[in-house]
Amino acid sequence: MVEIRKPIPVTEAIRQVMEHVTHLGTEIVPLENAYGRILAAPIIAKHDVPPFDRSPYDGFAIRAIDSAGASGENRMPFHVIGEIGAGLLGDKPIGEKEAYRIMTGAQIPKNADAVVMFEQTVENENGFTLRKPFDAGENISVQGEDCKEGELLIEAGTLIHPGTIALLATFGYAFVEVAITPVVGILSTGTELLNVDDELVPGKIRNSNGPMIRAQLDRMDISYKSYGMAADELDMCTFVVEKALAETDMLITTGGVSVGDYDYLPAIYERLGAKILFNKVAMRPGSVTTVAELNGKLLFGLSGNPSACFTGFELFTRPAILGMMGGTNPYMPRMKAILGEDFKKPNPFTRFVRASWEFTPTGVIAVPAGFNKSSAVSSIARGNCIIVLPSGTRGFSTGDEVDILLLGSELGVSEWTL
Amino acid sequence: MVEIRKPIPVTEAIRQVMEHVTHLGTEIVPLENAYGRILAAPIIAKHDVPPFDRSPYDGFAIRAIDSAGASGENRMPFHVIGEIGAGLLGDKPIGEKEAYRIMTGAQIPKNADAVVMFEQTVENENGFTLRKPFDAGENISVQGEDCKEGELLIEAGTLIHPGTIALLATFGYAFVEVAITPVVGILSTGTELLNVDDELVPGKIRNSNGPMIRAQLDRMDISYKSYGMAADELDMCTFVVEKALAETDMLITTGGVSVGDYDYLPAIYERLGAKILFNKVAMRPGSVTTVAELNGKLLFGLSGNPSACFTGFELFTRPAILGMMGGTNPYMPRMKAILGEDFKKPNPFTRFVRASWEFTPTGVIAVPAGFNKSSAVSSIARGNCIIVLPSGTRGFSTGDEVDILLLGSELGVSEWTL
Repeated sequence: MVEIRKPIPVTEAIRQVMEHVTHLGTEIVPLENAYGRILAAPIIAKHDVPPFDRSPYDGFAIRAIDSAGASGENRMPFHVIGEIGAGLLGDKPIGEKEAYRIMTGAQIPKNADAVVMFEQTVENENGFTLRKPFDAGENISVQGEDCKEGELLIEAGTLIHPGTIALLATFGYAFVEVAITPVVGILSTGTELLNVDDELVPGKIRNSNGPMIRAQLDRMDISYKSYGMAADELDMCTFVVEKALAETDMLITTGGVSVGDYDYLPAIYERLGAKILFNKVAMRPGSVTTVAELNGKLLFGLSGNPSACFTGFELFTRPAILGMMGGTNPYMPRMKAILGEDFKKPNPFTRFVRASWEFTPTGVIAVPAGFNKSSAVSSIARGNCIIVLPSGTRGFSTGDEVDILLLGSELGVSEWTL
Repeated sequence: MVEIRKPIPVTEAIRQVMEHVTHLGTEIVPLENAYGRILAAPIIAKHDVPPFDRSPYDGFAIRAIDSAGASGENRMPFHVIGEIGAGLLGDKPIGEKEAYRIMTGAQIPKNADAVVMFEQTVENENGFTLRKPFDAGENISVQGEDCKEGELLIEAGTLIHPGTIALLATFGYAFVEVAITPVVGILSTGTELLNVDDELVPGKIRNSNGPMIRAQLDRMDISYKSYGMAADELDMCTFVVEKALAETDMLITTGGVSVGDYDYLPAIYERLGAKILFNKVAMRPGSVTTVAELNGKLLFGLSGNPSACFTGFELFTRPAILGMMGGTNPYMPRMKAILGEDFKKPNPFTRFVRASWEFTPTGVIAVPAGFNKSSAVSSIARGNCIIVLPSGTRGFSTGDEVDILLLGSELGVSEWTL
């Protein structure tokens, strides 16, 4: 008798996974290792930026009042009393009709309140003349105009990208408090699996899911322990799963979650006393995706079919890993696209179709990336997005508007809205 | 007298940079290190996928002809002669009314030409009965349906992402030929610069461009040599630039490219005999961005202003690095968005505004990421895209359609279309 499983909607499955993530705490890393980590504390401005009034141009710092009445017919002369390069300081306040030659980024000298660009002057032996009046504050980058001391700039839970690094450096964060990253275990199950360097033999295929998941984790800069491949043998698989769970923070298995005679993951979960969150999701591919939880650790039982495995990781495992780090934007960005070719399969379940999106003069077009079955592997290698076709719909035609999820996007979004 | 520079359009600047990239050749890396590299040879299918006819379901393999005439009133009985798990083989051909119990992924046994899912059968002591006829080929994953031996699947020049890894593994590529990655030198110039762990002192700021560029390279998995910071001193800067160029494949400097008294990069290029491709681009921020070439190596003279520096890297340096590896998709993906707030500055030059895009029920909305000047640093830390406002336009208003470029996207596009 085949077990009948009740499928739950994708949204509900994601909600359940995210409800079960546990945080691993925080650690301090040097700034140069902080790229790609998740901020564990907000970035607060430690001082004003800029920290002093400064010149945005190469030119002359003057008192605006001295330029009053200047015109083409009445050029105002200024006497240059010194020069201030960026990083240097003027050593005396300027007086009437005096000016400092000043470079971009240099601190405005005492009494000056405007900067005249070189191009706006005619230079002479002692200084220069001007042909227009300047307002007080003109061409000054005012202290604190970018941010003010004490201002909350970036929330905890944000991914540290290159711009974040610039901000951290500005405030002198030589060390940064970040979320500890989980170590993920990977185990590929299936008697049919060969190693990548094995010759093909009848009835067998090479293990592509293991290397693919390692790359999906590489993409997130998450470290892993690989437990290789296990044949469909209950005791041995149980042993490896138990060992892997003890040594890692989360376990991903591939294969063994369907209703076949050698699909042992359900039995292993039972033996170990893991709580099954769900074992059927109303999606294609990957309806057999199973997620369980034991002692606060998540066990992702992804399908052995490559397309299903890929999709299961991106939909469930990736957000869970980001969630374990307190990441506030764990989901793939979504947008709309026009379907570039017919997709005539009906969709009893929500369907995820590997595809390519492209900007064209008529809008964003998404085209399925070829052969589409849960066992497909070539289409995973093509394309840059996933088309999402809602359950309960019939085929879609060229020109229909569809939702797409962007793959390989460093910054995600905070909510799953499909 | 201030030097007058002639600005060239952004598109022309990108074209010139890309014309001057040189390839560094190829190398062989193990599959587990291939993620993020650029394929130096196309992926050709080494065999059919699947490599044999196989079962897409858990069920029974039968001869379709034996199911002819089956109905609810006339259930057809089958005798099960054995079982085939994935990775195993049936040891005998099936005969009339015979079937193999077969698991997902297993090779179809001799003489069988259809698979019946468990759910479609009623099992009994010797086998099962069926209530509908099956067609020859029904529920069979046919050898080669995903790809055929000899088929060109992925072109050289493609970034290796997790899906590519799955395909490489499938065909037994334990080693992969990839483009050699350049080593990039980074030198921050400016007497105003402090190290990240220095206390602020009057007139000085911490170096944020150096760490930011290191992170921009980290994001691309490109290694670098950091030459630290140099004060605005001509001989010393020349010495470091020359040394860096000898030790790396490309040099990025920040600062020193404007027309100030201590902007020494132009003089250094001249001393070294480098050919200047351009020293003024019709863009904001970053109009002073200068690119030179010496002995086949590119020198990127990025602005010392953080926003300008960031933008210059993403617009020019990143595509050049990808181009050096033969990457065929070096540019940021573009799309359209609705401006979410007014942006009233006029745009004498093409303007690049750091922003956040978000999908909303009314479409994609892009909102500038706050304080907008070339010297801004806080806005670089926010947002996930760059709004591009064409030169010659006046201010833009909420609701206007604008172009955006996506930041942090693993896969780019082949053409610069703005």
